[in-house]
Amino acid sequence: MGEFELIRKVFYRGPSRKTLLGMGDDCALISPDKTLAVSSDMLIAGRHFLPNAEPFDIGFKALAVNLSDLAAMGASPLAFTLALGLPQADDAWLEAFARGLFSVADRYQCELIGGDTTRAPAGAPLTISITVMGELGFGGLRRSAAQPGDHIWVSGTLGGPARALQLLLSDAALDSSPVSSALDRLLRPEPRVELGLRLQHLARSAIDISDGLIGDLGHIADQSRLRAVLDVSKLPFAPVLSQLSAYDRLSLALAGGDDYELAFTADPSNRHALDALSDALLASHGFGLTLIGHMHDGDGVSLVDEDGRPVHGEFKAYEHF
Amino acid sequence: MGEFELIRKVFYRGPSRKTLLGMGDDCALISPDKTLAVSSDMLIAGRHFLPNAEPFDIGFKALAVNLSDLAAMGASPLAFTLALGLPQADDAWLEAFARGLFSVADRYQCELIGGDTTRAPAGAPLTISITVMGELGFGGLRRSAAQPGDHIWVSGTLGGPARALQLLLSDAALDSSPVSSALDRLLRPEPRVELGLRLQHLARSAIDISDGLIGDLGHIADQSRLRAVLDVSKLPFAPVLSQLSAYDRLSLALAGGDDYELAFTADPSNRHALDALSDALLASHGFGLTLIGHMHDGDGVSLVDEDGRPVHGEFKAYEHF
Repeated sequence: MGEFELIRKVFYRGPSRKTLLGMGDDCALISPDKTLAVSSDMLIAGRHFLPNAEPFDIGFKALAVNLSDLAAMGASPLAFTLALGLPQADDAWLEAFARGLFSVADRYQCELIGGDTTRAPAGAPLTISITVMGELGFGGLRRSAAQPGDHIWVSGTLGGPARALQLLLSDAALDSSPVSSALDRLLRPEPRVELGLRLQHLARSAIDISDGLIGDLGHIADQSRLRAVLDVSKLPFAPVLSQLSAYDRLSLALAGGDDYELAFTADPSNRHALDALSDALLASHGFGLTLIGHMHDGDGVSLVDEDGRPVHGEFKAYEHF
Repeated sequence: MGEFELIRKVFYRGPSRKTLLGMGDDCALISPDKTLAVSSDMLIAGRHFLPNAEPFDIGFKALAVNLSDLAAMGASPLAFTLALGLPQADDAWLEAFARGLFSVADRYQCELIGGDTTRAPAGAPLTISITVMGELGFGGLRRSAAQPGDHIWVSGTLGGPARALQLLLSDAALDSSPVSSALDRLLRPEPRVELGLRLQHLARSAIDISDGLIGDLGHIADQSRLRAVLDVSKLPFAPVLSQLSAYDRLSLALAGGDDYELAFTADPSNRHALDALSDALLASHGFGLTLIGHMHDGDGVSLVDEDGRPVHGEFKAYEHF
């Protein structure tokens, strides 16, 4: 089988069900009933995943982190395109990659509608670029929409994936239950799509946490021209952090990155509804919601303890440059 | 200035005019009135452009080849996302890249609405992935829609960019007028957007020629379950090919790649309308249309001379693998 045929065999799954025209032409054609939310991400081996990562996990995560952007807008997944720069086209590798990709695509009914596959030049790393499209029946959970007094909430737990990466790189034993659950979340993050959809009437603004809570919440603060005040005693630390010093725990939870949880702001009057949603999500999806602070006049992100006293420390978000 | 600010300064051009929400949030939001055409391409230094290419030209071509896909569908450009894997963020390089990119974006009123910028790991080449979106008021010029008896047409001339690349790589003199015009087309291809829009009522199927006429027309033949019969005596060879042997000329025109012209099929009754369109395009845009063959029952692509006798030879389209 030629490599063109291999790629077709691996990625083509019959005529499109959700769009007017899927793969195989100059363009795909879609006809959304509602507003279309669009986001693009690029993942490069050695930067966003370890060069020796399992192809299933690479495919899984590549789509999952894009769906996380849809979740943060409150959009429902529709379709995606995939551009691949491949160092080599190895049958087994491509098939496992596609299995990981489609396991996420199928769960969220997000259809592959087109893309591009290129043989990368010698020495170039595997590069994956996905553009995901979703539908939205409202104005979206925009970063600029927080109001003074809004509560700040976060889903799930923080710092686990960053700690798992540290352990993975240090060749530590990875077999305890907190470690393996943090590792699962690092390698195969579940995008919070259902939560994003449920937040349409409950939240004002949202962002997904890819570069660390403090940096990502900083974007909401900046774009809403407000200050985010975080009560560090409320942060939902991942269980894998329990043996660490208070500073290390805080550092990983605030700035570790790769959490792919949602941080969002909501009117205080929605507190009980969000507590109920948290209970429901815990039962159905295994993660809850935690109230961790509030929005205030001012700018930037400030940290306080449970008595409202300032907490000092340098916690910088992951910077791509 | 930090590199994050540099990227923002270079790429951010104020609030979106064509969409509900542009850059700066988890997703862009668009609300197309019509069907949306979507296409993604990835360009890698050393594969799609020379590593020492001018940043202006790289930006220009990266968007132009994506718009060429919209043109081949008959769509009107709307917006695009840009994912960049950058070996280094050099101010002057990024600014020139953005000038090239926006010179195309502005000409076709295609708005940058989001994306992602990543520092590529050491040794990784510059990688650009663009997803372009356009609007379409009809069913699109699909590869599968050719009919038996359709005329086959092609825009502009063929083989010039492939010849220019040969000359560029051989350090030949590049200063003659046919060479410099072929070089312009290689480095800064003009997508045939206006032509695509005019073909809505005149053509049945279309494709853009990126990998060479014979391979790309083969896609129309395959998907329409027909044979494409090309009269090689009718091919519009680029002037830069005039000194070459007949075989080399044919080889570059059929399989050289990088032409970014449109090949399309049309009912024979549209011949006069297409001749008139050709005259109009020649006057307004400097390129015409040429009738080069017809669609026939059968499969594949066959070559004939002006008397209809078979022409033999191995002409293979550029294969990415």
